[in-house]
Amino acid sequence: MNHFLTKQRAILKVCLISLIERKKMYGLQYLKELKETFKPYGYVPKHSEIYKALHELTAEGIIYRIKKRRCPDREGFQEIIIYQFTEDGLEKGRVYKQMVRSDLERSLGIIRKVLKDNY
Amino acid sequence: MNHFLTKQRAILKVCLISLIERKKMYGLQYLKELKETFKPYGYVPKHSEIYKALHELTAEGIIYRIKKRRCPDREGFQEIIIYQFTEDGLEKGRVYKQMVRSDLERSLGIIRKVLKDNY
Repeated sequence: MNHFLTKQRAILKVCLISLIERKKMYGLQYLKELKETFKPYGYVPKHSEIYKALHELTAEGIIYRIKKRRCPDREGFQEIIIYQFTEDGLEKGRVYKQMVRSDLERSLGIIRKVLKDNY
Repeated sequence: MNHFLTKQRAILKVCLISLIERKKMYGLQYLKELKETFKPYGYVPKHSEIYKALHELTAEGIIYRIKKRRCPDREGFQEIIIYQFTEDGLEKGRVYKQMVRSDLERSLGIIRKVLKDNY
């Protein structure tokens, strides 16, 4: 590993795993939740970034995607997207989160070092 | 401003300004110093990244670049590159550092928030 601070993608993936752990399943909720989380820090995650993070989690076999029809008994319907853990997804998700945790702590170390040495 | 964690480029620029404040002028020193600074954090800055940071600081009128011949009185010589502050470069550099400081503190906030909410 040779990179600088933790990547946006990794952090969004961690947040999405946590949301799904808390039984938040609706794709549409994620953008709203993540925007609220990071708003006080002047960061607004883009829809496309969240989509890419969900796509990676799916490709890694951590979550899977289901299309559902809302109100299938009525005339007219809307398709909604739901995400759930695969059979071993919860465990894989925890492993991924722990990996990112070390990287977040490494990043904290870098920022503290830069603040200490230069100010 | 809408970005995520502080950019590598900004942090390298801050470190370079500090090195020049401490009268370290030789382009060749920078790579060595910065590698040592970040080594414990698993990050090895690339020569090309440092070069780009120096280029930006030059373009922004904070520093300028001098080519010198080492041992001009002897036969055979080596060209060395020296960086110094422009007339108002020291002050401009301080302003830049303060701007990045706020952004580093914002980034600390994001990382702490992610650690608190997800672990």
